[in-house]
Amino acid sequence: MDSAELLNLLGNANRRRILKLLAHKPCYVTEISEYIGVSPKAVIDHLQKLEDAGLIDSRTDDQRRKYFSIARNLRLEVRVSPYEFGTKSAYPANPEFEMPSCRHLSIDVGEEGAGNFHDLARELEHLQQLENELSLAQRWVQARLTDVRDRIDSGFENGDGRLYAELVSGLANGIDTVPALAREIEAPPEIVEEALHRLEDDEVVERTDDGWEIV
Amino acid sequence: MDSAELLNLLGNANRRRILKLLAHKPCYVTEISEYIGVSPKAVIDHLQKLEDAGLIDSRTDDQRRKYFSIARNLRLEVRVSPYEFGTKSAYPANPEFEMPSCRHLSIDVGEEGAGNFHDLARELEHLQQLENELSLAQRWVQARLTDVRDRIDSGFENGDGRLYAELVSGLANGIDTVPALAREIEAPPEIVEEALHRLEDDEVVERTDDGWEIV
Repeated sequence: MDSAELLNLLGNANRRRILKLLAHKPCYVTEISEYIGVSPKAVIDHLQKLEDAGLIDSRTDDQRRKYFSIARNLRLEVRVSPYEFGTKSAYPANPEFEMPSCRHLSIDVGEEGAGNFHDLARELEHLQQLENELSLAQRWVQARLTDVRDRIDSGFENGDGRLYAELVSGLANGIDTVPALAREIEAPPEIVEEALHRLEDDEVVERTDDGWEIV
Repeated sequence: MDSAELLNLLGNANRRRILKLLAHKPCYVTEISEYIGVSPKAVIDHLQKLEDAGLIDSRTDDQRRKYFSIARNLRLEVRVSPYEFGTKSAYPANPEFEMPSCRHLSIDVGEEGAGNFHDLARELEHLQQLENELSLAQRWVQARLTDVRDRIDSGFENGDGRLYAELVSGLANGIDTVPALAREIEAPPEIVEEALHRLEDDEVVERTDDGWEIV
């Protein structure tokens, strides 16, 4: 599921209330209908949309009652700044997913507990603190990114700085050929080519065998 | 602006396209209308909603043409898991915002460049790599959180484990009194009280002067 589909789904307040309820406990249609004060027919319609998107699934118990629950882990990030409107959604994979080594980031992951209740509670606490710290760090990075883009922008006249800041961003994300950069920033290839040469003159970028990179 | 209002706004594909365009460059109504293929009247309506929410603002140039641009930094996170549906929105503050010290996280923030174009480009690249690493770390934490909640849940019968996992989560986030915990997890205070005593017997939590905390 892509970010756009997810935002369309989450743009509805009743679907958000259903997800909130299902995160609390698995529920059947009548329960949801009573809890959120929406007709069973409308609830079934929302559940169908959420199930089609793979966000929830259902199982039928011994009394043939159908329970719905949240199917999987999912994370959506939206970043808005004067220079960026970006959405990103990702599945956090399975618990065996190893934290890869990072160049600029180190995390005290703590010891995995022996598995008794006390250790699990401590680990939950530790992970939630880590999650809060990561959010804080992301806010800090976003503020600095805007500041750097502002400073690049203000170094040029007529707002051309935006173009240069976007090109440098694209290169930093591994988009390194003229056609790919032109698609990314939605500008004609000739303008991208010309701007890259200007950046080359300033010794900001250089040509490689396959494309361009930041010096 | 709260997360719910933001999700309602972003649930519309044309509003997302307008934001994407304004992140690229400031635009006036006719430009936006032609670019996204929507009538000027509808564009004005979307712009009004975005402006009311403080997401965009406008300035009028010498030719009395009104340009719209994105007003501020904003970040929205949505987490979905079998145990959680959480949304969080935050303003990344101003560029002077200092990265606070974190208990479990350390970041190589790099040197701030002298301010020439080459240094700014390097800093932009560095910050984008850091942003990607932080996203990766968030996904890893979310997968581990779900795993720990699963393990707590499976230690109890009848799905009671969810209640205990939610209580421990609440305490980990500094919600430490019976009434506040009852509100947080939407359960009657008596049930919360009873569960806390059970957790106390297991030496997972203890009573403090003001409430409860994880041991």
